Amino acid sequence: MINQLTIFGVGLIGGSLALALKKAGYCRKVVGCSRNEAHLQKAVELGVIDKYCLDGGEAVEGADVVLLSVPLGAMKSILSMIDGHLSPEAIVTDAGSSKASVVEAAREVFGTVPSRFVPAHPIAGREKSGVTAAVEDLYVDHKVILTPLDNTSKSAVATVTAMWEAAGAQIKTLGVEQHDRVLAATSHLPHVLAYALVDSVSRTDYVEEIFQFAAGGFRDFTRIASSDPTMWRDICIENRAAILENLDHFQAELAKVRELVERSDSQQIFNLFEHAKSVRDDAIMKRN
Amino acid sequence: MINQLTIFGVGLIGGSLALALKKAGYCRKVVGCSRNEAHLQKAVELGVIDKYCLDGGEAVEGADVVLLSVPLGAMKSILSMIDGHLSPEAIVTDAGSSKASVVEAAREVFGTVPSRFVPAHPIAGREKSGVTAAVEDLYVDHKVILTPLDNTSKSAVATVTAMWEAAGAQIKTLGVEQHDRVLAATSHLPHVLAYALVDSVSRTDYVEEIFQFAAGGFRDFTRIASSDPTMWRDICIENRAAILENLDHFQAELAKVRELVERSDSQQIFNLFEHAKSVRDDAIMKRN
Repeated sequence: MINQLTIFGVGLIGGSLALALKKAGYCRKVVGCSRNEAHLQKAVELGVIDKYCLDGGEAVEGADVVLLSVPLGAMKSILSMIDGHLSPEAIVTDAGSSKASVVEAAREVFGTVPSRFVPAHPIAGREKSGVTAAVEDLYVDHKVILTPLDNTSKSAVATVTAMWEAAGAQIKTLGVEQHDRVLAATSHLPHVLAYALVDSVSRTDYVEEIFQFAAGGFRDFTRIASSDPTMWRDICIENRAAILENLDHFQAELAKVRELVERSDSQQIFNLFEHAKSVRDDAIMKRN
Repeated sequence: MINQLTIFGVGLIGGSLALALKKAGYCRKVVGCSRNEAHLQKAVELGVIDKYCLDGGEAVEGADVVLLSVPLGAMKSILSMIDGHLSPEAIVTDAGSSKASVVEAAREVFGTVPSRFVPAHPIAGREKSGVTAAVEDLYVDHKVILTPLDNTSKSAVATVTAMWEAAGAQIKTLGVEQHDRVLAATSHLPHVLAYALVDSVSRTDYVEEIFQFAAGGFRDFTRIASSDPTMWRDICIENRAAILENLDHFQAELAKVRELVERSDSQQIFNLFEHAKSVRDDAIMKRN
């Protein structure tokens, strides 16, 4: 049970956690903080938060858990803002989509990464963003990856675990670098490809027909290109190395496929498609 | 009203049309033909077809409409098989995903493209294939693109139009080459990318974690990689030129995006993502 949860960035991610914890009766008070007072007022109206502060230091006063659910590019400034204002037993966690950059920001602000800072990443989202998109069941049966360091307090990990479990999520643990490489492949690269595909298509001379005749495959394939550009720009900046590694890997693969199509190599094309289908069918369909 | 419809390849596409026309009371008799007798027996059991023939010439006897819903690579051999067996007023149409190659196959078999051959492409599908996946509402509110030639009979076009409309579809008309370029962009390229992405990911050293942590975005993005490899191999062979054109375009785009990420160009990354999002939101969301 949390007495006070302070959330920086009361949007889809932070707002949905607040709603889930309220529904579960797991949190007595939720305080919101952001630069946008109108958003915070909206969050109060919607019953997502109980009160708000515009000052970060004030917002964390009395908090036993502090959640940073802001774009990756804003993490460091929030950490600087709360430095010196946390109570000694307060636990800080985040919801950033890349972890090395957040850990590094904490190291820069605090000198060393505090033992009561638990890097975390809930694997959930919608194309809609902002507090009005927040829903209480966003995390039900979704995974939250924790990437604790060697010095991270076990009791802090236990508190963050219990909080996400109260919201319906399943907790998994990965190393920081492992998280960033895996997420680059499963999430960051696909987003980059979807944005690139739509951008590419939009610059052809038959863009009208393309969208007119786009079938379900195209809609699903490009769904993630309707995601928040600020968030995804930040991810590209903050998880740059792993994204470039995956992009290189994919570009090499695409060059290989192009070569097969170029020389009309039926058998190799079939083998590659059949392999991909069986991998996906086995891995994804059976798992879900 | 069709007296006898003969379908070559009684799978998802042909089978769903048969079911839809039966439901609409628009077709008196459906005859199926394929090389696989067990599949045809299954189609009779399921009530998809009324009878079947293993011989193509025999199958088209008495048919007023003949539908070729076989993989693109089999179109030419089916056309050869029925050449000389069609009644003079019989109309032939197909359901191939690329049109220039089917038109070319008809030209090769018949010397000139017959005026009663109507090239067509229903824009509908599921990942599941085969007659057991056939459903009577597959085409409801889906588009069917006709690509008639200058010499195509207007009454033949009217018959094919009426048939697909009876199945619930909307008819659109495009030129042959225009169809192939548009579909390469909206459908063929995304399939190639999805297959390539899954293949690429399956060859990394952290494939287990990738599928374990794959979120909804990855599942949607790669859904089309669970499509039938034979069908998609054939599409890559038969619509090779337009697919290569689109692949080149996309690879250039991806190189541009890689360059932006490489040099951490926040502003340009944001601009590109925001442009893609707005294009997709406008084009897809408002249209559907």
